[in-house]
Amino acid sequence: MLTVAMCVALLGCLQAQELRGHVSVILLGATGDLARKYLWRGLFQLYLDEAGKDYSFSFHGAALTSTKQGQAFIAKVLESLSCPEDVAPDRCSELKGQFQRLSAYRHLATREDYMALSKDIEAQVQRGGLREAGRIFYFSVPPFAYADIARNINSSCRPGPGAWLRVVLEKPFGHDHLSAQQLATELGGFFREEEMYRVDHYLGKQAVAQILPFRDQNRKALDGLWSRHHVERVEIIMKETVDAEGRTSFYEEYGVIRDVLQNHLTEVLTLVAMELPHNISSSESVLQHKLRAFRALRGLQKGSAVLGQYQAYSEQVRREQQKPDSFHSLTPTFAGVLVHMDNLRWEGVPFILMSGKALDERVGYARILFRNQAYCVQNDEHWVADQSRCLPRQIVFYIGHGELGSPAVLVSRNLFRPSLPPESWKELGARPGLRLFGRPLSDFYAYSPVREQDAYSVLISHIFHGRKDSFVTTENLLASWGFWTPLLDGLAHEVPRLYPGGAENGHLLDFEFGGARLCFSQQQPEQLVPGPGPAPMPSGFQVLKARYRESPLISAWPEELIAKLADDIEATAVRAVRRFGAFHLALSGGSSPVPLFQQLATRHYGFPWAHTHLWLVDERCVPLWDPESNFQHLQTHLLQHIRVPYYNIHPMPVHLRQRLCAEEDQGAQTYASEISALVANSSFDLVLLGMGADGHTASLFPQSPSGLDGEQLVVLTESPSRPFQRMSLSLPLINRARKVAVLVMGRVKREITVLVSRVGHEPKKWPISGVLPTSGQLVWYMDYEAFLG
Amino acid sequence: MLTVAMCVALLGCLQAQELRGHVSVILLGATGDLARKYLWRGLFQLYLDEAGKDYSFSFHGAALTSTKQGQAFIAKVLESLSCPEDVAPDRCSELKGQFQRLSAYRHLATREDYMALSKDIEAQVQRGGLREAGRIFYFSVPPFAYADIARNINSSCRPGPGAWLRVVLEKPFGHDHLSAQQLATELGGFFREEEMYRVDHYLGKQAVAQILPFRDQNRKALDGLWSRHHVERVEIIMKETVDAEGRTSFYEEYGVIRDVLQNHLTEVLTLVAMELPHNISSSESVLQHKLRAFRALRGLQKGSAVLGQYQAYSEQVRREQQKPDSFHSLTPTFAGVLVHMDNLRWEGVPFILMSGKALDERVGYARILFRNQAYCVQNDEHWVADQSRCLPRQIVFYIGHGELGSPAVLVSRNLFRPSLPPESWKELGARPGLRLFGRPLSDFYAYSPVREQDAYSVLISHIFHGRKDSFVTTENLLASWGFWTPLLDGLAHEVPRLYPGGAENGHLLDFEFGGARLCFSQQQPEQLVPGPGPAPMPSGFQVLKARYRESPLISAWPEELIAKLADDIEATAVRAVRRFGAFHLALSGGSSPVPLFQQLATRHYGFPWAHTHLWLVDERCVPLWDPESNFQHLQTHLLQHIRVPYYNIHPMPVHLRQRLCAEEDQGAQTYASEISALVANSSFDLVLLGMGADGHTASLFPQSPSGLDGEQLVVLTESPSRPFQRMSLSLPLINRARKVAVLVMGRVKREITVLVSRVGHEPKKWPISGVLPTSGQLVWYMDYEAFLG
Repeated sequence: MLTVAMCVALLGCLQAQELRGHVSVILLGATGDLARKYLWRGLFQLYLDEAGKDYSFSFHGAALTSTKQGQAFIAKVLESLSCPEDVAPDRCSELKGQFQRLSAYRHLATREDYMALSKDIEAQVQRGGLREAGRIFYFSVPPFAYADIARNINSSCRPGPGAWLRVVLEKPFGHDHLSAQQLATELGGFFREEEMYRVDHYLGKQAVAQILPFRDQNRKALDGLWSRHHVERVEIIMKETVDAEGRTSFYEEYGVIRDVLQNHLTEVLTLVAMELPHNISSSESVLQHKLRAFRALRGLQKGSAVLGQYQAYSEQVRREQQKPDSFHSLTPTFAGVLVHMDNLRWEGVPFILMSGKALDERVGYARILFRNQAYCVQNDEHWVADQSRCLPRQIVFYIGHGELGSPAVLVSRNLFRPSLPPESWKELGARPGLRLFGRPLSDFYAYSPVREQDAYSVLISHIFHGRKDSFVTTENLLASWGFWTPLLDGLAHEVPRLYPGGAENGHLLDFEFGGARLCFSQQQPEQLVPGPGPAPMPSGFQVLKARYRESPLISAWPEELIAKLADDIEATAVRAVRRFGAFHLALSGGSSPVPLFQQLATRHYGFPWAHTHLWLVDERCVPLWDPESNFQHLQTHLLQHIRVPYYNIHPMPVHLRQRLCAEEDQGAQTYASEISALVANSSFDLVLLGMGADGHTASLFPQSPSGLDGEQLVVLTESPSRPFQRMSLSLPLINRARKVAVLVMGRVKREITVLVSRVGHEPKKWPISGVLPTSGQLVWYMDYEAFLG
Repeated sequence: MLTVAMCVALLGCLQAQELRGHVSVILLGATGDLARKYLWRGLFQLYLDEAGKDYSFSFHGAALTSTKQGQAFIAKVLESLSCPEDVAPDRCSELKGQFQRLSAYRHLATREDYMALSKDIEAQVQRGGLREAGRIFYFSVPPFAYADIARNINSSCRPGPGAWLRVVLEKPFGHDHLSAQQLATELGGFFREEEMYRVDHYLGKQAVAQILPFRDQNRKALDGLWSRHHVERVEIIMKETVDAEGRTSFYEEYGVIRDVLQNHLTEVLTLVAMELPHNISSSESVLQHKLRAFRALRGLQKGSAVLGQYQAYSEQVRREQQKPDSFHSLTPTFAGVLVHMDNLRWEGVPFILMSGKALDERVGYARILFRNQAYCVQNDEHWVADQSRCLPRQIVFYIGHGELGSPAVLVSRNLFRPSLPPESWKELGARPGLRLFGRPLSDFYAYSPVREQDAYSVLISHIFHGRKDSFVTTENLLASWGFWTPLLDGLAHEVPRLYPGGAENGHLLDFEFGGARLCFSQQQPEQLVPGPGPAPMPSGFQVLKARYRESPLISAWPEELIAKLADDIEATAVRAVRRFGAFHLALSGGSSPVPLFQQLATRHYGFPWAHTHLWLVDERCVPLWDPESNFQHLQTHLLQHIRVPYYNIHPMPVHLRQRLCAEEDQGAQTYASEISALVANSSFDLVLLGMGADGHTASLFPQSPSGLDGEQLVVLTESPSRPFQRMSLSLPLINRARKVAVLVMGRVKREITVLVSRVGHEPKKWPISGVLPTSGQLVWYMDYEAFLG
């Protein structure tokens, strides 16, 4: 007895047998370069792979050329197609004949043309006793043509219910975040997200497409290796030998970052770095994890990149675009970028992205280099590749070209023997003498594809099978532009380093990194063509000692001043810890102490943080996690990088019972008693103050009388600017400190500095003039601009 | 007119001119091996360096042998002395004759002998019209003889006022921390600290003695390099080819860690790692900084070391010490140890200490390997050593032997050109074909001493000049033993891996590290001689699912159980953050969650920590910084390793107004309102509980009724064990959670597990039986021992 479910299944099966699905592929821009080189070939491959299975096909080469010219072009292209090696010649010409018969040129311009196309497809389906499965529109046209075509497809050429629509888009997808968003919004008016397939052809490169399957199939071995604990660095590289000659009209608008890094290299980066989904065959899950990887990317700064331009470039632009002799392009043809990820897996691991034209070789790869965490007792003469853990350990997804000349996956033999799908990847034969990444090829387990396929063939097959994870979704696209746009903006006026091109580049483009910054290893050589150079640095870095308001003054250029202040704070801390076992430091908010925090965090290894108590001089009445809160500055620039015990950190209690600085919550009194309890005699060892352009200090303002005298140690005050409410140490408490340092920086402070140098003790007018430690020491730290103007 | 001060100065000057200082050197054990090989030579060198300057000398070779034998011995030794190459033969024989005349044998046994010696010295000083400057007693005798000699010197042979006493001691200085302390106390009864010079002859090795001066003279270049930001690893190595044959009676007592690592390699370690004093010529300052380096050493665990023993060792011990055939020694002749320093400069940098006998080569070095922080754009064929930042960058203090055959300081050319004192260090000539540390010698700036000196000559000169920083102070010694003793105790019964010796060792002794652990790279081969092997691991690592008290139970071996629980917590966290934007996790104290914390900290890279709030289930009424506090556990094992924002951490307010859990301070109420304010509906997303052997959970105890029912969310309770006062979430609050996980581990929980499986809802007797989430889920996690016994 058949159950209902079995009936339905059987019925579906019968239907599928009865009505074969039909797929129409419409190649827009069928007579263009990309179509000629790759797309017709890809469609033929699709036909070879799928013909005789469940679907029938028709291929419509569309363009704006006359029908006659178009037909002639297509006939020529189709004639030139060849089959893969494993297809016998007879069979090949038979299949080619079939494909030619299924392919036709079609002039497609007006709405009527699209309506006619739709009618023709429907008629063909009906004639053949078929069921329409779907339509693929491949946009191989310039972006300015997108909107018209999209409108026509949407209004006049959608398939009927039950059949899908897939539109395939080629880059560029905008020029920055804003333009990409506009384009996406426009397209979003015509197509649903799941209908759009944005091509990044790198995702079709066999070695790139293998990254996730490789990670999946070697989970066990990689699980313990794929993190900051083991990875030393990741390099994602695309080097070209060609230059931009003949393409400068495009290139001048884009440059290497938009052309290669924002798309190709970033896609590879996410495939390497993303958390691996449990099920990598779920497109949705892969795309979600990819987006999460984007969110973990640390924002790029100007200092995260180095730029170059091959020497002949400007001349090429002048020639091709009729620019005057005085024209010098700033478009980079080379870029090295340092990317960091702020998650626990990758924190601190440098991801190096690099691409350039006119380099010494053509090669692309993603290379994961593992740390050497072994000590080999024998002298290194005795090391053998598959046994010694002291030789380099690396995994390379070799995208192509280079000395190997084909795509490959390489795994150092001292790492593990990888598993790759044997039907599509085979072990590479010996190539004596060939060295890759500093080691002979024999040091690697090396695999190459059984059948080399070009990226477009791979992607066209994925489009047909609806594998969206090989394409760039709108979210993914905007995330990538969101990541790159600030850097592009920051570098817009940067003069790239000129390089001669080819092997002559020598070490000129080598770069190195420390922390989040990247710079060329060699000093800037004399520019071959004049350009705006960097501003000359002031000479005479000396620390000046003088007196200001009858107290010692230290003045220097900003960098030296901060270094000196940090040194003095450390010396005070060491002394205090030695004498009293603890160091009580009260820090001001605002942006001027930020470089000081950074200096202390990254340079002062001997600082007794474990015995230091950190207090706040003042705080804005906002929650601690508000980006405006002084505490948040402290957290980001200092606390994250050092090890102060939790209970030695004393944020001001501005946020109690879900209210901000309510008198009834007695936050100021609470802080005062915490100080009295922990700080002997309520005398901080060091209080760091700033000085506002209105003469305020801490959060003691001229307009607001509280905290200038009296018994209160901690007070609520009013600021003239938002957020108005503040909490602050009082002047009497500040003046109990053993040492007070006032840091004043920048030309904007020049006027108040002059003024305050002349006034007496008038805290009500100039609160800073009330800073006068009873028995402690006051020292002024001013940079030259604040002090000398 | 002369002032008084000038008079005094002039007088001092005149006196010094009138009365030449006299120094007596008494070499105890003058007929021993060390004296014969090194010490007489060192004394002769001292004489060559200092004769004709400001002092006169007499040398007394003392021993217990008869005067005749002693005289003969000494005459022979003195005759064999030779001058350095740069002294002309005539001049040499003249100086040698002088030295022989100043040197005499002396039988020194009883107190009377020492008194007589003292008298003789005084007479000699008077006769010569000299002023006694000081006396050096060099103890070249076994430690058991120390006390007697020390007593005699102290009571009967101290120089008069104005002259110094220096006693020189040779290792071993004890066998562990306790014995070293006893010995130090004993000697401290006779000598003041500044009178004692403990020799570690490594500190006299020229390359070792150069470490601090090198760091000082190259401060500028090293300042930006000498830290975890740039150093990849530090290797401190002493390899020997000889074995312990003929010395097993000593060696069997000590082993390689006591013989080499505790002293020589540790001294080198501190010289490399210590903060550099401003003034390295201040002995006191150097010693202070060294002690601080000791304090920063992270404690060693059993897992921090690997041990080996060359295969012939046990047989040698049996032969030399008449042990039975069944005897197998556990004394290591090889050790690799991973050392970490807990300070901001070195955090995370592996310091590898290694030494062994019967290895493939004799060599000693301290090698600082820097991280590669460059990307070289050209294919690596084009790299040139002095330009490419991509080649290894290292600094090596080459102590001696090895392929170089002499002490040296090596600095990679792509690092910087170092400055060394030209009067004592010269550039090394070319040695084509010689490779060191994977690179040709030509890759380095290489320096060797102008004049090679043996360590004892260097140290004897330092003793004479009172340079205490080249010696091991009592504090330094005890700090070192304090560091090593726990490891030595932990390894006392460890079976070392047997190795064949020499080049045949192959990769057998290679080791690798991850985190704080170190292990051999290769699996344990079959032991050549039987020894107690490791306990067999239980097989069948499976996670068992069952039911317990009508709720789901998950059981497994401890490691799998913790992994499963951590996975479940992460999954819950990801879900909660996705749905509500935050994850509220309440964690229990005690030791069982520690492995869970470690698992979460080191394995769960995708955990949404930035959106996680951490709450405490219970707390002991101790300050948060007390080692007993639950919060402190959390801080050490979890918080230090992850990035949870400060304001997402919610310790229990057990310590308010400097009081612990005072009712009036309303800590429990404060915590309750914090929960109500931040946690929707006061329902934690996950509460992690434990179960005590008495059936308690959280800090809800059978004896204490509070918190078992009622309205209160947070309560103060009484524990049957110290500290008695606790704060705890109440049962009603726990039961509001969306999920409760109870973790029960270890055989000690077996009984209560069985009992609780049978009881009903009796929270007053068994508080754990009251855990029954109203609408949430309860899951039990028990390891096999707790569940199956």
